[in-house]
Amino acid sequence: MPKKQKFAIGVDLGGTNIKFGLVTDKGKIIKKETLDARASKGPDAVISQIKKGVASLLYSEKTLNVAGIGIGSPGTILIKKGTVQNPPNFPGWESIPLGKIIKKEFNIPTFVENDANAAAIGEMIFGAGKKLNSFIMVTLGTGVGGGIIIDKKLYRGDTGGAGEIGHVTINHSGKKCNCGSRGCIEAYVGNNYLIRDVRRSLRRNPESILYKYVNSENKELSPKLIHEAALENDEFSLSIISGIGENLGYGLSSVINLLDISNVIIGGGVAGFGDMLFVPLKASIQSRVMKSFKERIKVKEAKLKNEAGIKGASALVFYRS
Amino acid sequence: MPKKQKFAIGVDLGGTNIKFGLVTDKGKIIKKETLDARASKGPDAVISQIKKGVASLLYSEKTLNVAGIGIGSPGTILIKKGTVQNPPNFPGWESIPLGKIIKKEFNIPTFVENDANAAAIGEMIFGAGKKLNSFIMVTLGTGVGGGIIIDKKLYRGDTGGAGEIGHVTINHSGKKCNCGSRGCIEAYVGNNYLIRDVRRSLRRNPESILYKYVNSENKELSPKLIHEAALENDEFSLSIISGIGENLGYGLSSVINLLDISNVIIGGGVAGFGDMLFVPLKASIQSRVMKSFKERIKVKEAKLKNEAGIKGASALVFYRS
Repeated sequence: MPKKQKFAIGVDLGGTNIKFGLVTDKGKIIKKETLDARASKGPDAVISQIKKGVASLLYSEKTLNVAGIGIGSPGTILIKKGTVQNPPNFPGWESIPLGKIIKKEFNIPTFVENDANAAAIGEMIFGAGKKLNSFIMVTLGTGVGGGIIIDKKLYRGDTGGAGEIGHVTINHSGKKCNCGSRGCIEAYVGNNYLIRDVRRSLRRNPESILYKYVNSENKELSPKLIHEAALENDEFSLSIISGIGENLGYGLSSVINLLDISNVIIGGGVAGFGDMLFVPLKASIQSRVMKSFKERIKVKEAKLKNEAGIKGASALVFYRS
Repeated sequence: MPKKQKFAIGVDLGGTNIKFGLVTDKGKIIKKETLDARASKGPDAVISQIKKGVASLLYSEKTLNVAGIGIGSPGTILIKKGTVQNPPNFPGWESIPLGKIIKKEFNIPTFVENDANAAAIGEMIFGAGKKLNSFIMVTLGTGVGGGIIIDKKLYRGDTGGAGEIGHVTINHSGKKCNCGSRGCIEAYVGNNYLIRDVRRSLRRNPESILYKYVNSENKELSPKLIHEAALENDEFSLSIISGIGENLGYGLSSVINLLDISNVIIGGGVAGFGDMLFVPLKASIQSRVMKSFKERIKVKEAKLKNEAGIKGASALVFYRS
C-alpha cells in the first residue's frame, strides 16, 4: 500500500491580504482562500482572520491527513513559540506568539517563519532548490528579501534574523535606505525605490516607449510596465532592467565571496523578466567574484512564482516534521 | 590522577618563513622554531623544510603526548587530504596533498587549514572566541582574511573557500582590487593598498608628524609608523586609522546583516591600534546595521596576537581530535 499522502495548510500573511492554501506534500495546492488581513484593526482582528481561513480549509476536508499549519509572516520570528515581532505594516503588533495561539486553536503542529525564509524553504522542498545542498535565495519585491540554505537547513543566525540580503551594501555612500543605512541593495532594486528613480529619469527620456505608456496612455508606472516596454525593445526600459541585474550582482558577489555558496535562486515578480535580467546579473557576478568561485556559480529563477507565499508556508510543515 | 596533558605541533606556513611551535592544549607555546620557507625553490623544498621543523620539535621532546600536527597555509585547502591549492607567493605549487605527505612522514594525525580559518579556530579554542557560539573573525594584514564560526564550527562553504571578508564590496565602483573586482574591503584596508594611498596623500600633508617621520627621519612608511604618529596625536595619522575603522565597518555591516552574527573579533597588526581604530569601527557598524541587531553587537580585539599563526595551526589539532 502506498504511504498515505500528507497535507499542510499554508498561510501567507501579508499586510493587505492573508492567503490560505491546502497543499499536498508534493507542493500542489488543492484548495485556496483569500481573506482581508484587517491589519489596521490590530493583532486580534488579524488572528481572528487567520483562524477563520484555516478553519475553512481544515473543516471542509475533514478526511484528509493534515500534518500541520505553516505560516509565513513579515517581521522577526522567535522560532520556539512562533512569536512574530514588529511586522512592518501591522500596527500595534509588537510581539505576538502567533504559532502558539494557532496551535492551541486547532491542536495541530504549527510553524511560523519569516516570509523570505519561508520562500527559501519552499524552493528547497518543492522548487528550484530541491536538488541543492546549499543555496542563496533572493526575493525581489517591495523589499529585497533573502534566505540562506546551508546543507539543506535554513540558516537563521544568532537571533533568527539572518539572510537580510537586501541590506548588503553595494555603495557605502550611496542611496539612503529605509533601514537607516546607505547604499543597500534594496535601495536600488526594491520596487518602491526603483519606481521612484525611474519616475525621475523618465522625464529625461521622453522618446522612450515607457514615457509614452505613462504619459500618453496613463498607465501606472510599475515593474510590470517596465517589463512590457522592454519587451517592445524600449532601450530605456531595457537599461533599467539591466541596471537591476548589475546592482543585484554587485551585492550577490559579496555574498558569494563570503559564503562560498555557488547556487543562487531569484524569486519575486522581477525574477520573471528572463534573460534581460539574468544576462546582466550573471555578467555582473562573474566580473566580480573571486576567481576560484567563478566556474561553479549558477543563478536561476525560482519555481514557485505567484504561489511562493502559500507553498513556502506549507513547506515549513514538511521541512520541520 | 589528572588527565595527561596533550600537545600539538602548530605550523604557520608563510611565503618567507615557516614558524613551528610545540603548543599545550591550553594554548601555551613551550618551544618554537623558525625556518626559511624556500618558497622560490618549489614545493619539494618547502615540504622538506616543513618536515625538518616538525622533526626538530617532535624528536626533541620524545616523552610528550603529541596529539597531532596542524598546518595553517595560504591558498584554498581541500580538507580531506589537506591538499593546498595555488597558495599565492609559492611558485610551482598548484595542488599538493600536504596533509597526507606530513601525516605519512610522522605517522601522526595532521590537519591543514587556510591560515585565516586557522586564526578563527585559534581564537575559538584559545582566545577571544572561547565563550562564543558564533563569531566573525577578521585578520588585518597584507590581505584582509576572514573566518566564520557558526555554533562552534568553522563554516567552510561549498568548496572550503568561505570567509573572504576582504572581498566583500563596500563601493561597487570604488578602488581596483587585486582579486579583479572593485571596492573590496581589502582594497581600502589591506596593508599594501593602505600604504600606497597614504603615500599619495602624505604629500598633501607636509605639516603632519607622519610626513616628518618619513621625509626628514627616513623612516619606512608602515601601519606601525602610522600608529606611532597617531600616538603623538598626529591628526593626519589619526584620520587614516579612523578611515580604516569606517571602511571596515561598512563591510562588516553587510556581513552582520547577512549572517546575524553579533560577535566580531579583529586580529592582525592593525587590530592593536586600540580605541583609535575600534571607536570609529564600532560607530561605523552601529550607524549601518539593521535596527534589530544594533544592541547585541560586540567587536573586540583578538587575543592570540603575534602568535596567532602557530597557535591557530595547533588549535586545528585540538578542534578536530
